[in-house]
Amino acid sequence: MEVFAVEGLPEVRPGDDLAAMIDERVDLRPDDVVCVASTVVSKAEGRQADFDDFPAGERARGIAERIGDLAGEEKDPRFAQAVLDESEELLLEVPFLLATTRFGHSTVNAGIDRSNVPDADLLLLPEDPTASAERIRSGLGGDPAVIVTDTSGRPFRHGQRGVALGWDGVPAARDWRGERDRDGRKMDVTVQAVVDELAAAANLVTGEGDGGTPVAVVRHFEFGDHDGSDALFRDREGDLVRQALAEWEYED
Amino acid sequence: MEVFAVEGLPEVRPGDDLAAMIDERVDLRPDDVVCVASTVVSKAEGRQADFDDFPAGERARGIAERIGDLAGEEKDPRFAQAVLDESEELLLEVPFLLATTRFGHSTVNAGIDRSNVPDADLLLLPEDPTASAERIRSGLGGDPAVIVTDTSGRPFRHGQRGVALGWDGVPAARDWRGERDRDGRKMDVTVQAVVDELAAAANLVTGEGDGGTPVAVVRHFEFGDHDGSDALFRDREGDLVRQALAEWEYED
Repeated sequence: MEVFAVEGLPEVRPGDDLAAMIDERVDLRPDDVVCVASTVVSKAEGRQADFDDFPAGERARGIAERIGDLAGEEKDPRFAQAVLDESEELLLEVPFLLATTRFGHSTVNAGIDRSNVPDADLLLLPEDPTASAERIRSGLGGDPAVIVTDTSGRPFRHGQRGVALGWDGVPAARDWRGERDRDGRKMDVTVQAVVDELAAAANLVTGEGDGGTPVAVVRHFEFGDHDGSDALFRDREGDLVRQALAEWEYED
Repeated sequence: MEVFAVEGLPEVRPGDDLAAMIDERVDLRPDDVVCVASTVVSKAEGRQADFDDFPAGERARGIAERIGDLAGEEKDPRFAQAVLDESEELLLEVPFLLATTRFGHSTVNAGIDRSNVPDADLLLLPEDPTASAERIRSGLGGDPAVIVTDTSGRPFRHGQRGVALGWDGVPAARDWRGERDRDGRKMDVTVQAVVDELAAAANLVTGEGDGGTPVAVVRHFEFGDHDGSDALFRDREGDLVRQALAEWEYED
């Protein structure tokens, strides 16, 4: 398996044909997985926004005040309003906003980016990243799979890692249930979230910031002879951590 | 960057020189990261165990009974005792055991494996995976980095993915703090857990079970000109989810 960044992409602007920009820079093949950072997907889709687009309601003002008190600096309530508008549920309000987006991804600030946004205050995540992946894939030659990726923190472990937000042309996971180990016993490992592992691999070669290259290709990926599953995001009933957070009050 | 499995490793047994077994099958280089599944590290280190090694105390018997009642089938309290012995803290007792191991990894059943263990009931995780990585690395030619990996589930997302348990020769994370984006703003992304991303990439080519190949090499990985950090596991003070789980009671 090879993993390489697609070089030479210019700054992406609203309305740009991202698929065409990728397609003219790399010869794609059916065993390729094209991993596209959500930042450039959002930029092409016009998901830039300004604070003024989010006049803060009462709840957002209350949240910004609580976070600001804890941080010892004033927080813009319009940012909290943006997170509220992008979210289906808040998992934490303080000491920071942890939210589940409308498409199911749980992350700090609903993934709203305040860096890497020329001429705007904010960059929202794509509204429906799997639809974005489908659109991009339909514009690419060579029949590769496409994953829209993000970098995101997580419980239990420091640091961020690449994750999948949306995908097309590859199942989200290999389902090993019912398969057997070398000694014929049923396996403990059941479902392998390959799209997250592909996003993580891609993130190793793309990088962030000044020298960032937002598109990477994983070549010669073999899904193999397994069942596939597209359930990636846990809903509240299937996630004890979401349930615990919902009933928990942060105390300073 | 290339990712490939090391083919032809025989079944690993207690006392085997795992480094020598790897070294004779692949020509390693300084820009290689050798990702070794914790299962074979544990096997070489003699971490096989039997239920009889863990006579169940009162707490283990109570946990097994509660889990068994919820599952509608009897659970062996000696397994709960093994998890207790391997853990520094239980994050959940029911409906399943979620534990933080003595070296800091939070995972179901403290990572104790009931599949892939010939001639034993259980396979415990390596006692100190970073020490294991150091030992393996010192036995390898070509000066590669080494990561001892596991597959593990996580909150918010279904499925398991490769993660690092211990590492040597590469920092756990790239520290981007203080670096700037294209527009000169400070970056939202701060610390990138590259050892987890490397473990995830390796897991895409190794697989589990019958056809499993427990060692993979990531070649041409460039850490780049960043600060490094070796803090990977969150302690309780730095992990709101651990705090929330500690105060939460599961209700059926």
